[in-house]
Amino acid sequence: MPLPAIEQLGAALPLVPSDARWIDVALGDLDAVHADHLHCERKAAQSALSLIRSYPERTDLVTEMARLAHDETRHVVQVAQLMKRREQPAAYDFGDDYAAALRDHIRKPEPLRLLDRLLVFAVIEGRSAERLGLLAEALDDPKSRELYAFLATAEVRHRDIFLALARDTAPDGWRARAAELATIEAEIFVDRPITARIHG
Amino acid sequence: MPLPAIEQLGAALPLVPSDARWIDVALGDLDAVHADHLHCERKAAQSALSLIRSYPERTDLVTEMARLAHDETRHVVQVAQLMKRREQPAAYDFGDDYAAALRDHIRKPEPLRLLDRLLVFAVIEGRSAERLGLLAEALDDPKSRELYAFLATAEVRHRDIFLALARDTAPDGWRARAAELATIEAEIFVDRPITARIHG
Repeated sequence: MPLPAIEQLGAALPLVPSDARWIDVALGDLDAVHADHLHCERKAAQSALSLIRSYPERTDLVTEMARLAHDETRHVVQVAQLMKRREQPAAYDFGDDYAAALRDHIRKPEPLRLLDRLLVFAVIEGRSAERLGLLAEALDDPKSRELYAFLATAEVRHRDIFLALARDTAPDGWRARAAELATIEAEIFVDRPITARIHG
Repeated sequence: MPLPAIEQLGAALPLVPSDARWIDVALGDLDAVHADHLHCERKAAQSALSLIRSYPERTDLVTEMARLAHDETRHVVQVAQLMKRREQPAAYDFGDDYAAALRDHIRKPEPLRLLDRLLVFAVIEGRSAERLGLLAEALDDPKSRELYAFLATAEVRHRDIFLALARDTAPDGWRARAAELATIEAEIFVDRPITARIHG
């Protein structure tokens, strides 16, 4: 039986929908959302590069992760340009306790560690895609809507790249672990205070 | 008096030429050179992203560094493809004591720290450009020559981006500090064992 097409991989990682109140909080402080988003895109590029450092012998992974980081660095430019157009201030990265809580579930021994890193990054891309999609629907400014729709689509593609690598890493175990991490994500996610941040 | 054009900035950072024996050592173990080079490109992208993390309020720097990281991630893909074509093994990153020795000269207090980080990265790009240029001239395979010539040109451009940011950060002091760091680099560089690595 052929492996499922990449478009269908996302079904392995169902995420609970965001609290309906989040979008109003986000729209209420778009400066904070954009400033946080800039760092999210930067950290996504850095995470992809960190996998190249850890697994240089995985030729497929090296190329996919370098391409993904190439995408994400373009997104950093795009978000920086949006912020400049809005003449809004930048902010330091205050850390991302959502991502940190997920990373706590990465198991230490290989090859479980690689599988978990790929799946946790897939989760973060999936959640980011949902949030950016909500912004794309709700923003007033047409250029911002267009940018956020573009970015949300890119994050779905990135989620599926991580899922495909996870599948290739653990053909028999990736689906069950993806389901576990989706459950873990729901627990982490629903208890969080609602803030004007991409994962807030 | 207008500021010097970007093409002339490199004159502020004269680097001593490589030992003539290096290219033969490098050609004698191209697998090792490429495997090391892959990590150099990755770390160049990571260094640029680390500056965005530290200085998000510098709009000019954020955009330039994201673009530079975008370039470098493309280079990672290109080097990975070269390695795949040659069916050569990857290697882990054994660290770069050359870059580490340079970074030891980054002063701690701001704004000196930013100036020094920019200039140290300029030095590393300048040295990388020289080494990649030597490879471009010496390699037999036409595709490899073309790739290395392209990459050497890119690293010169990156050096000048760092120098322009250094100039904008410390208009009165950048040139003297660049000269100091060029002298420091020469001391670090000439005493090193000659190895089949980009900075070896």
